[in-house]
Amino acid sequence: MDGGMTTDIDTVAIVGCGLIGSGWAIVYANAGLAVRLYDADPQGVVRARDMIAHELAEMAKLGLCGDPEPVVARITGCDDLSEAVGMADYVQESVRETVEAKTKVCAEIDACLPDHAILGSSSSGIPASDFTRDMKSRTRCFIVHPVNPPHLIPLVEIVPAPWSDPALIAPLRTFLERVGQTPILVEREIEGFVLNRLQGALLNEAFALFDEGYASAADIDLAVSHGLGTRWSFMGPFETIDLNAPQGIADYAARLAPLYTALAASRGMTAHWSDDAVGRATAERRAALSLDDLGRRSAWRNARLMDLAARRRRESDPDSVRG
Amino acid sequence: MDGGMTTDIDTVAIVGCGLIGSGWAIVYANAGLAVRLYDADPQGVVRARDMIAHELAEMAKLGLCGDPEPVVARITGCDDLSEAVGMADYVQESVRETVEAKTKVCAEIDACLPDHAILGSSSSGIPASDFTRDMKSRTRCFIVHPVNPPHLIPLVEIVPAPWSDPALIAPLRTFLERVGQTPILVEREIEGFVLNRLQGALLNEAFALFDEGYASAADIDLAVSHGLGTRWSFMGPFETIDLNAPQGIADYAARLAPLYTALAASRGMTAHWSDDAVGRATAERRAALSLDDLGRRSAWRNARLMDLAARRRRESDPDSVRG
Repeated sequence: MDGGMTTDIDTVAIVGCGLIGSGWAIVYANAGLAVRLYDADPQGVVRARDMIAHELAEMAKLGLCGDPEPVVARITGCDDLSEAVGMADYVQESVRETVEAKTKVCAEIDACLPDHAILGSSSSGIPASDFTRDMKSRTRCFIVHPVNPPHLIPLVEIVPAPWSDPALIAPLRTFLERVGQTPILVEREIEGFVLNRLQGALLNEAFALFDEGYASAADIDLAVSHGLGTRWSFMGPFETIDLNAPQGIADYAARLAPLYTALAASRGMTAHWSDDAVGRATAERRAALSLDDLGRRSAWRNARLMDLAARRRRESDPDSVRG
Repeated sequence: MDGGMTTDIDTVAIVGCGLIGSGWAIVYANAGLAVRLYDADPQGVVRARDMIAHELAEMAKLGLCGDPEPVVARITGCDDLSEAVGMADYVQESVRETVEAKTKVCAEIDACLPDHAILGSSSSGIPASDFTRDMKSRTRCFIVHPVNPPHLIPLVEIVPAPWSDPALIAPLRTFLERVGQTPILVEREIEGFVLNRLQGALLNEAFALFDEGYASAADIDLAVSHGLGTRWSFMGPFETIDLNAPQGIADYAARLAPLYTALAASRGMTAHWSDDAVGRATAERRAALSLDDLGRRSAWRNARLMDLAARRRRESDPDSVRG
């Protein structure tokens, strides 16, 4: 196992081909890899093929893939798990999100996983240590959690278990980039990983505001879809605040950390806007973008916002498709 | 004061014309209203005019406004506050975000506000009761909080103070819609209102994950800009989860409330995913979109996601404009 593995992956097995597994099949087959599909329910593979064909046809219309036919031709349905996994250089496990289901299928995968292959689990919140402990191949197991649907939203979280081989992280990241995904690394296990913790934080505040009668669900939705989500569609929270004060993130924190600390306290949370945390976030941002370039990046943000505003103006009201 | 006020607003005064006030001037002038600008610093009006001219020229290129010249011609600079406010049907206060600054300027506005006029404050988190208590016109005062920049992001929060006249809320909402904004109602005062509480929840979790070493700021940013933000750019959190389970939001909560409750607890928060709260959210969603129409709306979401994926593919790497 070495850095060469990323170019050596020719064949991917998908174990569990519901919506997530099918989306993964599209990602890998569209990137030119051979894909072997397996589902415990034989009808699962049939349904997946239908979904994949439909999605590829739609994607072709928008230039997201070429002719679907050769892509579909790279996908092979398998009747048993070992037939899929035994020939794979990489396995994407995408079965139901319970510790029991994942433990069971990982034991089956472990029995036939080739010695050089990596296993990525699509688990969206359960850490790999909850279901890979007893596998002989556990050093080659990682969480590789996509956003649904994986063929349309590129983000993927890589989360190692305590026993995952750290030397495999860089090649795994490279492999996922090669197939068009945007991987991030969660340095160690935490329930919900990064993505669902961020989503959960927003959802919990949304539910609290709704439950306490401050706003309707519809108005809370608008606050995101017509407000915050505009910026977040091209900038994350750190870059957003870095560009929202003349001297960057440290300047922003000096102005607004007291507000956010108070908001956190109002929900019983400890805020993490310490001078140390803000200082380290500032150092990371300034290494990526110097203070001298902040103005140029702000102009880029404004151009993006203006472009999005123009699109919003052109698009018909999405509500018009309702009911 | 009655429902007719929304069509009777011809003249708007902007008090405080930094970035937010200037953005508001663009919104109102572009909607055909006469705008009177005032800033305590005489250079403030000069700078605002430059910024407005620049933004309108850029907007015209993208079809966000027509010829800038007549828009600019509707904007008049004023040398003193009463000259701006005394002729206004609506006043947008946009001075510095401190209780002291807002209390002082609101007293000055109160002295010359016409009897029929409404005052909207751009306060981004300080409730109106902190600075409008002693005004004789206080029943006509509301928070009208935009997202920066108001001329490019349409969301506006209307937040009444305890003494604000509830009969004015509907016409104020209609007026803001007429000038192209997307108003939401925050039913009663809370620090940070809805928008910054949602932003704060995400930021606090982002800072916590960063501070505890789970991920870099860059990777947390990617989780939003290449993951969650894709959906949030056209759907809020409630619609997102309503479309993320076959039987809608109640079905989603049955599956995932335990996870989100655990995530909230891990930060010391009380979760608000009670059966009662979920039931009321479900009732609101089902009134807006029947269970029978959920499939059609999901297809609309998928089409939007596919369109966004195609745009992302076409766009050059945004990082290329850096440095």
